[in-house]
Amino acid sequence: MTNPQAIIIPEIQDLLEREQWDELRDVLQELHSADIAEIIKALDRDDEKINVFKNLDDEKSVEVFEHIEGDDRSFILPLLPQREQKNILNEMSPDERADFFDEITTEEVQHYTGMLNKEAKEETRLLASYPSDSAGGIMTTDFVTLSEDMTVAQALKRIREDASDAEQIYSLYVVNKQGKLVGIVTLKDIILANPNRKIGRMMDHKVMSVTADSDQEEAANLFKKYDLHALPVTDQYGTLIGIITFDDIMDVIGEEDTEDIYRFGGVKETEFSYFQTSAPKWARQRITWLLLLVVTGFVSGFILERYEEALTTVVMLAFFIPVLMDSGGNAGTQAATVVVRGLATGEIAMGQAIKVLRKEVLIALMVGVALAILTAMRAVIMHSDYSLALTVAIAMLATVTVAKIAGAMLPILFKKLGFDPAIMSGPFITTIVDIFALILYFELARLLLGID
Amino acid sequence: MTNPQAIIIPEIQDLLEREQWDELRDVLQELHSADIAEIIKALDRDDEKINVFKNLDDEKSVEVFEHIEGDDRSFILPLLPQREQKNILNEMSPDERADFFDEITTEEVQHYTGMLNKEAKEETRLLASYPSDSAGGIMTTDFVTLSEDMTVAQALKRIREDASDAEQIYSLYVVNKQGKLVGIVTLKDIILANPNRKIGRMMDHKVMSVTADSDQEEAANLFKKYDLHALPVTDQYGTLIGIITFDDIMDVIGEEDTEDIYRFGGVKETEFSYFQTSAPKWARQRITWLLLLVVTGFVSGFILERYEEALTTVVMLAFFIPVLMDSGGNAGTQAATVVVRGLATGEIAMGQAIKVLRKEVLIALMVGVALAILTAMRAVIMHSDYSLALTVAIAMLATVTVAKIAGAMLPILFKKLGFDPAIMSGPFITTIVDIFALILYFELARLLLGID
Repeated sequence: MTNPQAIIIPEIQDLLEREQWDELRDVLQELHSADIAEIIKALDRDDEKINVFKNLDDEKSVEVFEHIEGDDRSFILPLLPQREQKNILNEMSPDERADFFDEITTEEVQHYTGMLNKEAKEETRLLASYPSDSAGGIMTTDFVTLSEDMTVAQALKRIREDASDAEQIYSLYVVNKQGKLVGIVTLKDIILANPNRKIGRMMDHKVMSVTADSDQEEAANLFKKYDLHALPVTDQYGTLIGIITFDDIMDVIGEEDTEDIYRFGGVKETEFSYFQTSAPKWARQRITWLLLLVVTGFVSGFILERYEEALTTVVMLAFFIPVLMDSGGNAGTQAATVVVRGLATGEIAMGQAIKVLRKEVLIALMVGVALAILTAMRAVIMHSDYSLALTVAIAMLATVTVAKIAGAMLPILFKKLGFDPAIMSGPFITTIVDIFALILYFELARLLLGID
Repeated sequence: MTNPQAIIIPEIQDLLEREQWDELRDVLQELHSADIAEIIKALDRDDEKINVFKNLDDEKSVEVFEHIEGDDRSFILPLLPQREQKNILNEMSPDERADFFDEITTEEVQHYTGMLNKEAKEETRLLASYPSDSAGGIMTTDFVTLSEDMTVAQALKRIREDASDAEQIYSLYVVNKQGKLVGIVTLKDIILANPNRKIGRMMDHKVMSVTADSDQEEAANLFKKYDLHALPVTDQYGTLIGIITFDDIMDVIGEEDTEDIYRFGGVKETEFSYFQTSAPKWARQRITWLLLLVVTGFVSGFILERYEEALTTVVMLAFFIPVLMDSGGNAGTQAATVVVRGLATGEIAMGQAIKVLRKEVLIALMVGVALAILTAMRAVIMHSDYSLALTVAIAMLATVTVAKIAGAMLPILFKKLGFDPAIMSGPFITTIVDIFALILYFELARLLLGID
């Protein structure tokens, strides 16, 4: 299972070069649409991308278009023949179409909407009315519904009729006359049941669902907790309007984790991928935090100025500033990492702040003592100064303890205030712990070294 | 969909307190096994946990046991009646049983293996022969196989017979007489096909699979890329030995992301959850990095000692040390965050190092100039010293640039050397960029401020 693209891409480039369209079509026919999408992404020249696309059959070109990411889609579509544009736009699954419309300009949306048939237009209007990170934004409207008074045989007939359009037919939702979601049966239940049995008598009334305006993360958590195949989406009145399938959710899980990881690393997320985001845009996404943290860093500078006297008297004090700052930042980042992730996976609940605090203080004392001894040894060995050793040891222990407490508690506090706990990122905690560490260090020095 | 546990837990505690077993059974009957597992986790007293368990019916106690995490499992099982222990151990799905056996002591494994029937023993032996993070370690052996010469009607009969045991029946694998995997059909295909059609004529020969010793992350990537329901696992000869289902993969995706996030935050992962890992164990998981980074931090101290002369002459130099160190660390962490995540999701490929480098240098110059101006302004405003302003501005720009380059390139280099790129964590990059920043800063100061 090593990267098959490495062999296929040169082969395809060669066929394109020699304009051997029949052979190209044969090769493409054998490939999975996800692989073709990757190949298109990897090709350098625009005419190559287009020519691969033009040699796909109708069904495959829809699938490949769904798999392509970001900018490539909006650039390829207008270069295809009108008939193929229409085919792709009408045949692609409603949720993918909504994603695509999210990525392009309003003018382009208007232009392409004109090519849609009536049904596709309505689907698009419905999906566009929900934010792209809500349950309504990721659901599809292609699903099979059953009614309570159907027999198993009638249900199977309905499933057979609708199967070709439906995104999945393994979890089937039962609605009443008003379209309200009232139950769920699985295809497995139907296969195993007596053909004359009524759906209403065998369905499970306890059906998990979300409303369309729920956050996609809530939907993802239900999938993970209950091992769901699909999750029905209702409007506020309980009417079934869409379903979310597990493959959409796998993307959501990745996206949500990327968002958390970026925030925690002090980076704002961009809509597009790493390479498709321009350098100036990346710079904008990163500068906010950096500027904020530079200003916070100035505070550390002011603190040093305030203790200029001490620093001039005992210049050795300066030698331990980096190690104190680094250790505080690192210890705080560790605690914040574990707590932010715990909050995201639900492992740590909001009511458990005290339990977390107790644990982190214990951990801090253990690692803090070890680091303090090591730092004190350096002071004794290099400078033979026991008062300095005592000063740096106490400062180290206190810094690590405060760092662990801040790293663990600030994300919980932020979540309580309704913000994303991942905003309490490594860089942020590092910078604020630094301020504390410096003040404490110099105050200890004044006390223990008798400066001033 | 707000936390239903908040209401149910007190109700259950009340029923337990008043020993109203019939009512307790009624309440439990209505709950999903994933919810009951959460309730057991949340209950404080051990006797409460046991009593909830004892009031579940046979089928549900197996499901709940599968959903419980970590230590609770090994403590509850021996306290149940012998008959129930046997039932749980034999009826739980093979992959869950293998996970459980991974968590307990060798003596316990031997004891519980004695309670297994012949089939369960064999399954356990097979699964135990693969590492827990390999495809073989997460697969299940409960699956339905079809043969090429079966008709659709015969296949349906086989599916009906095996459905109750099988973990999923929506992707069905076709094997030849030697048990080698030769194709795949979906239940959808079978439902739609003519009953007399041969499976061999309708199956898809191109079936995605992994060998049992592949990494679970490879399996997860195939699920994400190809939107799979299930993935067959073969031995080295191509014999079908198990399947991985999408619900196992959702857990894997979460686990792999947690592993990356922890490493990046400078924390070693533990086998168990946050609360189930003791404080001394957490301390051990965190101390390695901290000690290593303290020693690296000492290097910064040595550098300051080497420039003691400069520092004593111009004490103002010290005031800018924190802001330079913080900015370098933060800029490097941002770049590393984006690159480590890009490598994990496959967004950034190994061949694209130069492309990443160009992009990060561009970003660094943009944000670096902004930060340099801000820092220089502080030097001018607070100290009216233009040479100092020039020194800190150049040092800032160079530090940010080096930090972005190191943050982006070290993870790629590490991956090339065969290590996990996430080891190039925020704390690590921060600490090494600090060393560079200090040397550069003082050398610039000597040059521009004419010290020495």
